[in-house]
Amino acid sequence: MLAEIKGLNEECGVFGVWGHQDAAQLTYYGLHALQHRGQEGTGIVVSDGTTLKGVKGEGLVTEIFTADRMAELTGSAAIGHVRYATAGGGGYENVQPLLFHSQSGSLALAHNGNLVNANSLKHQLEAQGSIFQTSSDSEVLAHLIRRSGFAHKNDQVKNALSMLKGAYAYLIMTENELMVALDPHGLRPLSLACLGDAYVVASETCAFDVIGAEYIRDIQPGELLIINDNGLKSEQFAVNSTKAMCMMEYVYFSRPDSNILGVNVHTARKNMGKRLAIEAPIDADVVTGVPDSSISAAIGYAEATGIPYEMGLIKNKYVGRTFIQPTQALREQGVKMKLSAVRGVVEGKRVVMVDDSIVRGTTSRRIVNLLKEAGATEVHVVISSPPIKNPCFYGIDTATKEELIASDKSIEEIRQIIGADSLTFLSTEGMVAALGQTEGANGFCLGCFTGNYPTEIYPDTLQYYYQRG
Amino acid sequence: MLAEIKGLNEECGVFGVWGHQDAAQLTYYGLHALQHRGQEGTGIVVSDGTTLKGVKGEGLVTEIFTADRMAELTGSAAIGHVRYATAGGGGYENVQPLLFHSQSGSLALAHNGNLVNANSLKHQLEAQGSIFQTSSDSEVLAHLIRRSGFAHKNDQVKNALSMLKGAYAYLIMTENELMVALDPHGLRPLSLACLGDAYVVASETCAFDVIGAEYIRDIQPGELLIINDNGLKSEQFAVNSTKAMCMMEYVYFSRPDSNILGVNVHTARKNMGKRLAIEAPIDADVVTGVPDSSISAAIGYAEATGIPYEMGLIKNKYVGRTFIQPTQALREQGVKMKLSAVRGVVEGKRVVMVDDSIVRGTTSRRIVNLLKEAGATEVHVVISSPPIKNPCFYGIDTATKEELIASDKSIEEIRQIIGADSLTFLSTEGMVAALGQTEGANGFCLGCFTGNYPTEIYPDTLQYYYQRG
Amino acid sequence: MLAEIKGLNEECGVFGVWGHQDAAQLTYYGLHALQHRGQEGTGIVVSDGTTLKGVKGEGLVTEIFTADRMAELTGSAAIGHVRYATAGGGGYENVQPLLFHSQSGSLALAHNGNLVNANSLKHQLEAQGSIFQTSSDSEVLAHLIRRSGFAHKNDQVKNALSMLKGAYAYLIMTENELMVALDPHGLRPLSLACLGDAYVVASETCAFDVIGAEYIRDIQPGELLIINDNGLKSEQFAVNSTKAMCMMEYVYFSRPDSNILGVNVHTARKNMGKRLAIEAPIDADVVTGVPDSSISAAIGYAEATGIPYEMGLIKNKYVGRTFIQPTQALREQGVKMKLSAVRGVVEGKRVVMVDDSIVRGTTSRRIVNLLKEAGATEVHVVISSPPIKNPCFYGIDTATKEELIASDKSIEEIRQIIGADSLTFLSTEGMVAALGQTEGANGFCLGCFTGNYPTEIYPDTLQYYYQRG
Amino acid sequence: MLAEIKGLNEECGVFGVWGHQDAAQLTYYGLHALQHRGQEGTGIVVSDGTTLKGVKGEGLVTEIFTADRMAELTGSAAIGHVRYATAGGGGYENVQPLLFHSQSGSLALAHNGNLVNANSLKHQLEAQGSIFQTSSDSEVLAHLIRRSGFAHKNDQVKNALSMLKGAYAYLIMTENELMVALDPHGLRPLSLACLGDAYVVASETCAFDVIGAEYIRDIQPGELLIINDNGLKSEQFAVNSTKAMCMMEYVYFSRPDSNILGVNVHTARKNMGKRLAIEAPIDADVVTGVPDSSISAAIGYAEATGIPYEMGLIKNKYVGRTFIQPTQALREQGVKMKLSAVRGVVEGKRVVMVDDSIVRGTTSRRIVNLLKEAGATEVHVVISSPPIKNPCFYGIDTATKEELIASDKSIEEIRQIIGADSLTFLSTEGMVAALGQTEGANGFCLGCFTGNYPTEIYPDTLQYYYQRG
Repeated sequence: MLAEIKGLNEECGVFGVWGHQDAAQLTYYGLHALQHRGQEGTGIVVSDGTTLKGVKGEGLVTEIFTADRMAELTGSAAIGHVRYATAGGGGYENVQPLLFHSQSGSLALAHNGNLVNANSLKHQLEAQGSIFQTSSDSEVLAHLIRRSGFAHKNDQVKNALSMLKGAYAYLIMTENELMVALDPHGLRPLSLACLGDAYVVASETCAFDVIGAEYIRDIQPGELLIINDNGLKSEQFAVNSTKAMCMMEYVYFSRPDSNILGVNVHTARKNMGKRLAIEAPIDADVVTGVPDSSISAAIGYAEATGIPYEMGLIKNKYVGRTFIQPTQALREQGVKMKLSAVRGVVEGKRVVMVDDSIVRGTTSRRIVNLLKEAGATEVHVVISSPPIKNPCFYGIDTATKEELIASDKSIEEIRQIIGADSLTFLSTEGMVAALGQTEGANGFCLGCFTGNYPTEIYPDTLQYYYQRG
Repeated sequence: MLAEIKGLNEECGVFGVWGHQDAAQLTYYGLHALQHRGQEGTGIVVSDGTTLKGVKGEGLVTEIFTADRMAELTGSAAIGHVRYATAGGGGYENVQPLLFHSQSGSLALAHNGNLVNANSLKHQLEAQGSIFQTSSDSEVLAHLIRRSGFAHKNDQVKNALSMLKGAYAYLIMTENELMVALDPHGLRPLSLACLGDAYVVASETCAFDVIGAEYIRDIQPGELLIINDNGLKSEQFAVNSTKAMCMMEYVYFSRPDSNILGVNVHTARKNMGKRLAIEAPIDADVVTGVPDSSISAAIGYAEATGIPYEMGLIKNKYVGRTFIQPTQALREQGVKMKLSAVRGVVEGKRVVMVDDSIVRGTTSRRIVNLLKEAGATEVHVVISSPPIKNPCFYGIDTATKEELIASDKSIEEIRQIIGADSLTFLSTEGMVAALGQTEGANGFCLGCFTGNYPTEIYPDTLQYYYQRG
Repeated sequence: MLAEIKGLNEECGVFGVWGHQDAAQLTYYGLHALQHRGQEGTGIVVSDGTTLKGVKGEGLVTEIFTADRMAELTGSAAIGHVRYATAGGGGYENVQPLLFHSQSGSLALAHNGNLVNANSLKHQLEAQGSIFQTSSDSEVLAHLIRRSGFAHKNDQVKNALSMLKGAYAYLIMTENELMVALDPHGLRPLSLACLGDAYVVASETCAFDVIGAEYIRDIQPGELLIINDNGLKSEQFAVNSTKAMCMMEYVYFSRPDSNILGVNVHTARKNMGKRLAIEAPIDADVVTGVPDSSISAAIGYAEATGIPYEMGLIKNKYVGRTFIQPTQALREQGVKMKLSAVRGVVEGKRVVMVDDSIVRGTTSRRIVNLLKEAGATEVHVVISSPPIKNPCFYGIDTATKEELIASDKSIEEIRQIIGADSLTFLSTEGMVAALGQTEGANGFCLGCFTGNYPTEIYPDTLQYYYQRG
Repeated sequence: MLAEIKGLNEECGVFGVWGHQDAAQLTYYGLHALQHRGQEGTGIVVSDGTTLKGVKGEGLVTEIFTADRMAELTGSAAIGHVRYATAGGGGYENVQPLLFHSQSGSLALAHNGNLVNANSLKHQLEAQGSIFQTSSDSEVLAHLIRRSGFAHKNDQVKNALSMLKGAYAYLIMTENELMVALDPHGLRPLSLACLGDAYVVASETCAFDVIGAEYIRDIQPGELLIINDNGLKSEQFAVNSTKAMCMMEYVYFSRPDSNILGVNVHTARKNMGKRLAIEAPIDADVVTGVPDSSISAAIGYAEATGIPYEMGLIKNKYVGRTFIQPTQALREQGVKMKLSAVRGVVEGKRVVMVDDSIVRGTTSRRIVNLLKEAGATEVHVVISSPPIKNPCFYGIDTATKEELIASDKSIEEIRQIIGADSLTFLSTEGMVAALGQTEGANGFCLGCFTGNYPTEIYPDTLQYYYQRG
């Protein structure tokens, strides 16, 4: 269950519109659909052809954008961002889109992903006199663009992008252009749609559905798409580009109603559950999933095994930032926080509990315990992905190598730690097969499972992830 | 889908603790578990044996109770309330618990339900010089208690309760006693649990689970339970009492992990879905449920028919009070609000859409439309309850007779209005059978389906529900 | 310097309009002008001829009344209130106007003053079954009106008023009438004005000036003024009424630009300062006043003695409720809070410091100390009123008998405690003469100076003021 | 009356502490004392020797710094800022201190004043690839420091300062040093004090008084003062420096309890009033001053002429940002906003109204009108400074040349426009003489009166001030 761990990386959501009179409003609804990708901050910048202006803040889309503030965001182009992590220390400054004004024009940036050479680039730029206002990786691109010697903005941007290593889906807006760039491995999802004459881009296709936009295609690895009042122009800025979509988008991060590279996420997860039924057939009374991300896999497992799916775990949907955590004393007396087991469903039963992943193991141990306290006689844990043995350098917020329980423990050791009666992980082959893609494993980044990463990793980044803890 | 209609009535949640040093904190977690029963206002009143003091406000539990405010709520007894409706005009005054101070002592009240003779009682009391501070029914009880001639508080309360008609679960707290009362038909759920030496009462058992309390029994129709430092004392204040639990608690209102009269709500709903599979077998490709309340029935239907259950509809969980509604123009362009259909799941498919109920029909029509726009070739609507033909006088917020689509239309007419390829309602017998209770239909209030109400209905109340619209 | 002491009593401000389409807006500006009379809470209730509705809250006029809330307050009649004290425990409930709805009509109340028999009346009313929602004295009147046997509202009100003892300026509004009542001694100021065809009433005439209303006359002791669409009607509800205006309104409480009983407050204070120059001629270099209320008297003193008036003390005008008080450690290092002495003005000088009154003596001691630390060689304190030896029962928030430094100490003892080089109080005769009124001392309540009160004082009230401390 | 006009310039307040464990708290009280210099934004940055961190926001000191936020500001050094204008578009980004982090250390800046070559410097820096995050002049210094080739921070700062033209009082803090710089003409006030072993700097000496710090001396024109744990070091970074203190600090801007270059501001203003009595003796009944800044001059005028000083104008002190302005309709009916004339004082009187300055004339016309409406038979306006004929380029927020009523109108023309019975301005000689300084006019910047500015003015700046309107 990945959701509860936070670290350095940034997994976020981006959304952009070009050519629609309600650009800011559409961005509002698009960001709202992408809210699961980041709840810590959000912003919108609009262009009216002459100037860029923006609103941003720390909080949810529905908190930051009041009717008053939305009324100020006039113009037919907009980009927006929802931000996940407190990478680089958090704070208002780091909330995106970043907006840069100069005497020769303005530039707005929204970034999803993580650069692996951000620190070295920053070091070089600072040595040349640049001043950074944020502690986020994303600002590096603005400085590279500004310092590029090329005369045309598009060349400046391509030149700057070619210096970045890592994962990035970038929206770059000037007064009269929206540029959309994806890293040469296409590590993060980014798609294009149209809405009448307008173009829309988003991290996930679910954002198209809520505004009634029609999906056109995915942005390609190494592509720079330039959108302006003359239409679309596609350029390739990378010499070599090979697709390596992040597998965790399917396993855990994206919304079930999104399609990534043409594959529906709910269906992918259900298929992972079905594969697990083959790889790990268990004699049990009920199947339950850990809400929200593991429900699809659990239903697939139930359907394939014939064991009834039941709502054995329930999550309180009213938990917000202001929820008062129970004291240690109350927790020991049994006060739960967000997740409860349903006694009426699991009491006296042998339970298969389906989860999407195990990171540190603490959450799994807690949930197994909840189920047993509620009367489950056996708890069999099945995980719809392989063991996570390595950190992610591209924006999925897992943990350092040391913190990952599977980095140095066997499955049997993990089973004992989490207190399950059995523990099964889906095989890498099974996971890939569940997506039904023809490229097989080659089309995906499986770095966190296998340790094979699509890009080189810079020493300072490596050190961070291996020695933090 | 009942959740979107608002009217006069009040369905709320109550919670109380006696004899625990963290009484207010436990009430906070209990109310948080009951938040689905009311999101418009909440309050807690504590007693430290000498004085009653409270905090209340309009908003969610996590919004109203800050750490600062909680710190003031010291004492070993507490009652709390979450409020659903804007009955009587809303406003801070109507948020409960109501708290009354006098030179002879204080009294706090929390009420779930709806009185049918509130207006006539108010009229009499005002004629005698009483001044009401709220426009809620609930305050009537306080005036009846104060004006009762009996010497002892318990007798005053019993005397006052005997004058009330309708549905009520009342928590009444003084400096040194917690009184718990249920109307003579037990129309609303109310249960008792213990936590060490402390007693806990709540509208639903899910509130016991989150605090680790152990369920003891349900409060009986016409019972007045008196809890003080000497323990429990149970009295019966009604001459005739016959159980008539509100059926809509099972169908729609309660949380799936709660048990009502010993029946788990998720299981009841799943059984309703299974009964529907027998009563309405359909040749289709996928089954989907309208989130959140119809998921259990949809899974039951899928399990019984063998048609795969899929996540064909998805609800944005970040919608709050401050969500900016799309303009009419944007809505016409396809901007969705809270619910979207998952194209990747329903496109080209014959879909069975399971919902819990149909009130006005507008929501059903909208959802059928969403599914068809997303590419469903057929949409078969199956409803896990019978047609609602009559208003509720006891606190379920349906609508007036005129507004209820089934009050004067045939099933075929409704099918055409909502645009479904077929429409089936569960039979009353099937619904009752799904609960597996021995009393059969006698133990339940089926008024909204059958028009037979367990209590007399007062003329002014009748008029309201029949002529509003 | 009276402003810093808080207690039981309530000194407040009231404002009302009848017959103007912008009634709520005018009330907003009127209350804003009366803000000095109470900063803890404020409210406005409007009548549109059919219903009464209101907005109220704890805070300043500019904080509670947002543009959104004001937009809801439509109607051509309004009453408003600013509240000073935390009498009765504070809280939203006690903020006025109080608003009472019943099946036979609504009633709103705004009250300035203090009743001396409130407790006994409450006791009787509760014994008869009434429930009080507030802990303020003011609510008693609503219950007396409701229980009055008279058929007509005006008679009910007169009957109810006749049972009250103490100080009160009441505004009472129903859907179609504004009733204005002043206690039989006229202890609190209350005046009438017109604005075109509309009538306006206010605690102080400064509220007329800001809205451009024309002063007509003062409300008379024991008068009930009834304003409705037929015009004005004046009735007398008290058998005996003798004027006894609170002297402290002149000395300290009212705004300098108000006129009370035809006497301008600034001028009255300046005259008090001039009288002091005669009664206490001092050989000094500069005169300074304690801001804000003592500036007028200080200027009068300077003018009459020829000693230059200087700004020797300065108050930070940005102090609000959220000001963080310095820690004890910082205070000992010399961090000041709100008031500072101006070294450039007082260093090496013999200073006459003029203040309006001495209550506990702590503030005076602190200010004398400030001046000496800033280099004053001598500090002569002159007070523009006599020693306060007795508590006030009518709404001026002084203190209990025990807390009053002058209740049991001689002037020489007080001088030593506050560290002044000399200390002079204005004589009672001098103070009265400064007002230039023909009635002499008879027209004023001098209770806090002389111990002679215009009304009887009830035992429970007496006890409170004498034993609190 | 200068206070009501806003434009490009920034007049602000700065405060700094080095070497005190309560550095942030002292800065809080210091900024609170300087709040009159800027109400639109405020911030504090602290250094604990290792890192710099800050809190800032748009609002008053008491609004931005909550107890929670103050608790985070640990460290023995701090700088703070209060910001006046919305120069450059306002917004959170422009609130100071500005804080810059880099891999080689951090830098915080707080600036009072206005640079005249900011635009040309920005242009050069952007051409070299720098990105500006704010639209304020103040950020230029950070880029100049970063790009300076010198090895040592102090040399970098001196080199950077030498490129600035205009008015500036800068506080520059790194992890282990506080640098304090004043422009070569000393146009803005800046003083040094000690508090035990700690050093304190502030825009005005009133900030020293509230924290009990002892004034040492003023910072000299062209001085760079370096404060660190080794003590103080003073360097001169400008080749030519000649004192030219802004005269408007005495006339209008500073607090009356501050001393500037050893002259108390209240005393200076009172002397200006006394000079006016000689230059403009008038036969009148009362003298009144426009609050707050003209009270001292009015008292001086009254004292010298023997005409009584009265409180003829009163300002509502509860006006805040959220005050709802009256509609045009209500204004025409006479609803006042913030300032009222006191009828009881001015009715039937010949009034001398003393004000500090006339900018556009609209405010003066409004006040003359208020006095006449309140019954003044004659209104004689005396201004305690000469006519303002020219814009200020150094941070006093007057207006463009076109907007200044005295730029092209004679005194008689102005008198007619404002509707006064007579109008007199203080002579330049009289104003300078009132300060009693030996340098005479040479020590002051009189640019706005005479058009002679101490620095060259850059073309782009000139254009702005002359063509805006």
